[in-house]
Amino acid sequence: MSDTRYDVIGIGNAIVDIIGRCDDDFLTRHDAPKGHMRLVDAPTIAALYADMGPAVEISGGSAANTLVGVSSFGGNGAFIGKVADDEFGKIFAHDIRAAGVTFNSKAVNGKDPTSRSLILVTPDGERTMNTFLGISTDIDDGEVDPDAIEAAKIVYLEGYLFDRPDAKAAFRQAVKIAKGAGRKVALTLSDGFCVDRHRGEFIELIRDGIDILLANEDEIVSLYETADFEEAARRTMADTELAALTRSALGSTIISKGERIEIPVDPVAKVEDSTGAGDLYAAGFLYGIATGKDLATAGRLGSIAAAEVISHVGARPESNLAELARRKGVL
Amino acid sequence: MSDTRYDVIGIGNAIVDIIGRCDDDFLTRHDAPKGHMRLVDAPTIAALYADMGPAVEISGGSAANTLVGVSSFGGNGAFIGKVADDEFGKIFAHDIRAAGVTFNSKAVNGKDPTSRSLILVTPDGERTMNTFLGISTDIDDGEVDPDAIEAAKIVYLEGYLFDRPDAKAAFRQAVKIAKGAGRKVALTLSDGFCVDRHRGEFIELIRDGIDILLANEDEIVSLYETADFEEAARRTMADTELAALTRSALGSTIISKGERIEIPVDPVAKVEDSTGAGDLYAAGFLYGIATGKDLATAGRLGSIAAAEVISHVGARPESNLAELARRKGVL
Repeated sequence: MSDTRYDVIGIGNAIVDIIGRCDDDFLTRHDAPKGHMRLVDAPTIAALYADMGPAVEISGGSAANTLVGVSSFGGNGAFIGKVADDEFGKIFAHDIRAAGVTFNSKAVNGKDPTSRSLILVTPDGERTMNTFLGISTDIDDGEVDPDAIEAAKIVYLEGYLFDRPDAKAAFRQAVKIAKGAGRKVALTLSDGFCVDRHRGEFIELIRDGIDILLANEDEIVSLYETADFEEAARRTMADTELAALTRSALGSTIISKGERIEIPVDPVAKVEDSTGAGDLYAAGFLYGIATGKDLATAGRLGSIAAAEVISHVGARPESNLAELARRKGVL
Repeated sequence: MSDTRYDVIGIGNAIVDIIGRCDDDFLTRHDAPKGHMRLVDAPTIAALYADMGPAVEISGGSAANTLVGVSSFGGNGAFIGKVADDEFGKIFAHDIRAAGVTFNSKAVNGKDPTSRSLILVTPDGERTMNTFLGISTDIDDGEVDPDAIEAAKIVYLEGYLFDRPDAKAAFRQAVKIAKGAGRKVALTLSDGFCVDRHRGEFIELIRDGIDILLANEDEIVSLYETADFEEAARRTMADTELAALTRSALGSTIISKGERIEIPVDPVAKVEDSTGAGDLYAAGFLYGIATGKDLATAGRLGSIAAAEVISHVGARPESNLAELARRKGVL
């Protein structure tokens, strides 16, 4: 293996989260599908914002959160994503760099604003996302730096990017470069509704180019159009080399070449805000795989990171994940 | 007393806080006086931001935080402050209105940006503020709506506004209108260094026009240029009708017409971030006074609100303060 300066490089939407609390009635009133991400237009996000309570702004974005997690475990990470030259773009760029992740993407001036997601957290800790895609999906294959992709052990792709054709082109370009350099390619399915929008293409991509698949139960049963997790797990085993399927309180199931490993969740006193649970599970799992840990250890690292992030508001870790894992005897 | 639709109206800097963690060495390296607020220029705030870790953005501003606290107690509040027509201005306006505070100030286009404060929290929970004053001090006497001032039982003024001459004019205008309508005028000294910059004018204003003085120990000893709190308390008693002096872990001392009441702090498991402690004490105290509670109860409401806000990151309450006070049997 030639020089690999990055453990993981991620490609995804560069997003700033606007996080507030609401009750279930609020979601119903605004037709927001609880627990999911939906794409909203400018008038919808304005109406939601006007009606919601006080909020906090914290950098987010699914793959970006994962890379911050990889860095917190002590891994070297990079992120490719597009921001505008505005306040939210400055916030996103500052926070990801301050977390130790290489972020060289240039801010774009004068087109769409930096993407943002209004995240509504209900009293049960569940999050419902309303994403206004600004400049972030404007990413195209010109954005994908071949040197950076070739220098990463794992290239990690965010399924949400499939929602725009140009971003999909960047996606395919990254897979091609990574494959050419003998690197692993990982994909997260991102969201059940996202899977529903792109099922055929996702299955094709998983069979042809994906080495590591990350998905939650909702996403994997949506992918294979079954209500049965076991059926979806069998199909996953047939289609992929390695997959980690998260199941909320039930923990996660790792599937690899006929082998199946069950990983328990890390206990949490109270789920404050589930935003980023999957992203941080992916951080621990990918960090583990990139640094040569066995699958059970990689899964445990995922559980530890997910538990940390759901114990507070916001999708980025507040504690050092390497220290946390060492205290638990996993690193 | 004629119609009073507001319990309290506040005039102050409209600020969005950018809150991150750092160690004491970071403060030393950047010449940031620990525990204080300093005014910084654009290059200084840019250098600090580039060097600091990941942050979160939460609406702030001293008097604005107080008004949000008054509203959380169930009081009717209004806030006068200036924001620019930019992302931070939208965040500030949304959050204060969503908290139930009347905010009618129009956003200004094309001059300075909305004010922001880089707040660095050290492991001991102490906060050090680096404020870039953008448009917020551009407030002048034209901003002060006489109808709104006359409609408030208490007009609350933020000492920080003294840092700009135009804002000072707005300040004096508000005092004049309030006095004319027979309303109470309250002042917070804001910060020891701020007191040092405006000592003479503050003393004059306190003797002539202020009915309720709020200050912490650092500020009141700075005002009277003494190292002795007892000496400062005696001087306060001579100069004011009513004062509440906060002393961190020692609680607060209420001084009124020769009478002195000691109020204990409300216990907190861990001080996460001391930002807003004084602002929220003021919220409880002023809400109590405006709604006719006795001085000891007003002080206890102050302690309860201060304890809530230092138990989490950010200077705005996360819990409903009226419920909290009811659970503690104080309301």
